[in-house]
Amino acid sequence: MPVNYVAPDAESLHPVKGIRLGATEAHVRKPNRKDVLVVELAAGSKVAAVFTQNRFCAAPVILCKEHLAHGHEIRALLVNTGNANAGTGEEGLRHARESCEALAGLMGCAPEQILPFSTGVIMEPLPVERIIAGLPASIEDLQAHHWLRAAETIMTTDIVAKGASRQIRLSGNTVTITGISKGSGMIHPNMATMLGYIATDAAVSQQALDSIIDHAVNRSFNCITVDGDTSTNDSLILIASGQCGNAEIDVTSEDYAALRDAVTAVAIELAQAIVRDGEGATKFMTIQVEGGRDRAECRKIGYAIAHSPLIKTAFFASDPNLGRILAAIGYAGVEDLDVSALKLYLGDQLVAEHGGRAAGYVEAQAAAVMQAAEITVRVELNRGDAAATVWTCDFSYDYVKINADYRS
Amino acid sequence: MPVNYVAPDAESLHPVKGIRLGATEAHVRKPNRKDVLVVELAAGSKVAAVFTQNRFCAAPVILCKEHLAHGHEIRALLVNTGNANAGTGEEGLRHARESCEALAGLMGCAPEQILPFSTGVIMEPLPVERIIAGLPASIEDLQAHHWLRAAETIMTTDIVAKGASRQIRLSGNTVTITGISKGSGMIHPNMATMLGYIATDAAVSQQALDSIIDHAVNRSFNCITVDGDTSTNDSLILIASGQCGNAEIDVTSEDYAALRDAVTAVAIELAQAIVRDGEGATKFMTIQVEGGRDRAECRKIGYAIAHSPLIKTAFFASDPNLGRILAAIGYAGVEDLDVSALKLYLGDQLVAEHGGRAAGYVEAQAAAVMQAAEITVRVELNRGDAAATVWTCDFSYDYVKINADYRS
Repeated sequence: MPVNYVAPDAESLHPVKGIRLGATEAHVRKPNRKDVLVVELAAGSKVAAVFTQNRFCAAPVILCKEHLAHGHEIRALLVNTGNANAGTGEEGLRHARESCEALAGLMGCAPEQILPFSTGVIMEPLPVERIIAGLPASIEDLQAHHWLRAAETIMTTDIVAKGASRQIRLSGNTVTITGISKGSGMIHPNMATMLGYIATDAAVSQQALDSIIDHAVNRSFNCITVDGDTSTNDSLILIASGQCGNAEIDVTSEDYAALRDAVTAVAIELAQAIVRDGEGATKFMTIQVEGGRDRAECRKIGYAIAHSPLIKTAFFASDPNLGRILAAIGYAGVEDLDVSALKLYLGDQLVAEHGGRAAGYVEAQAAAVMQAAEITVRVELNRGDAAATVWTCDFSYDYVKINADYRS
Repeated sequence: MPVNYVAPDAESLHPVKGIRLGATEAHVRKPNRKDVLVVELAAGSKVAAVFTQNRFCAAPVILCKEHLAHGHEIRALLVNTGNANAGTGEEGLRHARESCEALAGLMGCAPEQILPFSTGVIMEPLPVERIIAGLPASIEDLQAHHWLRAAETIMTTDIVAKGASRQIRLSGNTVTITGISKGSGMIHPNMATMLGYIATDAAVSQQALDSIIDHAVNRSFNCITVDGDTSTNDSLILIASGQCGNAEIDVTSEDYAALRDAVTAVAIELAQAIVRDGEGATKFMTIQVEGGRDRAECRKIGYAIAHSPLIKTAFFASDPNLGRILAAIGYAGVEDLDVSALKLYLGDQLVAEHGGRAAGYVEAQAAAVMQAAEITVRVELNRGDAAATVWTCDFSYDYVKINADYRS
């Protein structure tokens, strides 16, 4: 079960003016589930995007980049679950193109105005005919209030649908920001088997939109990890439909910071939901590394802790085996780290300093902290002012079970 | 159960002239098991060493380096299991010093002539009084043929004792090389919760001994991984007692390469034994990466595959989920990798090329390869002549079980 996360109510995900979503059961991989999503963008919408750093990026990722490079207005997103269309070579690219052409034909736009996305099993041919056959029903289903339905459609091993929504007042206008995400395994920054779609009805310049997505992703999706695997398909899309009546927000606008922060808050909620629903997760862990010389070394240490299977299994067992955390700090790759200068906290409890167990350390108290479903590990490096946070989950029998059985 | 590995017979581990080993039950952590080992080195022995890169290196590692820096002849090794004396700060160093002083007193040498080693739980005070109390019995027990007994003594979560032995003829003399190792979790290069002791009775110059250990470790212990965690205590010691009657071997000697290769063969056998006995292992995987520009990029890709929990769980399930291997190659961090140029083989079967599934790929054949207990994954990068091999094991329910329960 996800750690302190339940799927949002449909009503809590506010419609975003200019955006409609529709889904259908196209039987991409399994029957009796919605698996093809179309998101329609009103004319005048702007789009910013971040994609996986994986060299083996999937065909739809290649095509998304190509279509965005054309610079034409994006009019629709096409997402299928069940098959990632990754590791599929030239054929995969052809399939992705064919699905964009089919949707463009139905929507009366150019194929370059469609962004395609796929998630699911890698290295199997995309059943493109079934996806294309499902498009009319998805278009028929387009509604502004279908955000939850869309979130359900893009799930793979996710247990719950993930969505978040905010409304803020900017210069007299109500601005809505709503997003959905999916992903629960192969989760790692830069990024995850992660799909995320966030839309606002604010009018935003392209430069501001690019700047906002960069700010948001570095504080949300790039701070999470489930298993350290970086997927072939990760994509985050930020859409500004420009329909809410505000004057266009640029990076110098008074409203810029407020919009950026609201988008970031939605992104954090969506990113954390992915960890809370991490495969087999029973604990949600926040790793805070403070007092570093720069953010990079704080992230190195945070990720060394968050990736260690030894630490993750100890958290699963609620065992305060803190030596494993010290060991991970030690091998994180921060060359000149003085381990005797750092302090390690579990919750509020100081557990290690001077290179060893803290004088006041009481294992029973640490064990009590470990029982909680949400645990904060804090490392004070005492060598600078930089900090970084990483969110992760524990490593349970069910992680093995889910990943040993995923395809069957 | 270890994958195709059983403990060696006591008789198969040839005594090494000049080396005697003795063990006792000192109740370091648990009763009714040998846990304190003394290895006595004859006068004139030379020692070379490699230690963990972990910044949080354990007190005995710090002391070993200090003692070796003195340049005095090493006369004994003192090893305890049950407690790693790591993350123990100043007190840990004091405990390690006290145990060296006690053994030096009993053996009539200086404390700097003792090398201490500890393995077991991290961040708990070393029960140094019990270790010291056990020393007379360990010394009483010293015998040249106690290699298997020594291997049993240093085990932690190991299921089987690990040893290897070779005899070669060099310029008319029979030279013996015998070694033992321990470790099964927190196993990663540079190095592991790994202790390894290899001794030869050949006479070898210090320069040649240093060169041999460097050669051997880079082809053995630095090619393995179980879970990617680098421990605080890893130590590999190579001893040359000089008692077999040969002329001292230097790096320019005719016999140098033969001795180096025999030591390396013993080191590989000991290192592979650690993976075969990896925590929860049911499969032994050899990852061969070939055709790279340099060894570093081949190792990056090898380790990306070997560390992926998604791949390791798929191997556990005998599921040829090859897309996960492609994904790992893609995120290994080789910047300009052309994924369409590489070939991926599972056993002898070509499974991927041109960025996707190979034309002749038959999943049933791949599934058959996956059933075996020993599986070779081969990646042909087609961009150079460098190669690297990584050995690892799969990731099973039992890995989680062992590490969730280790301290209890």
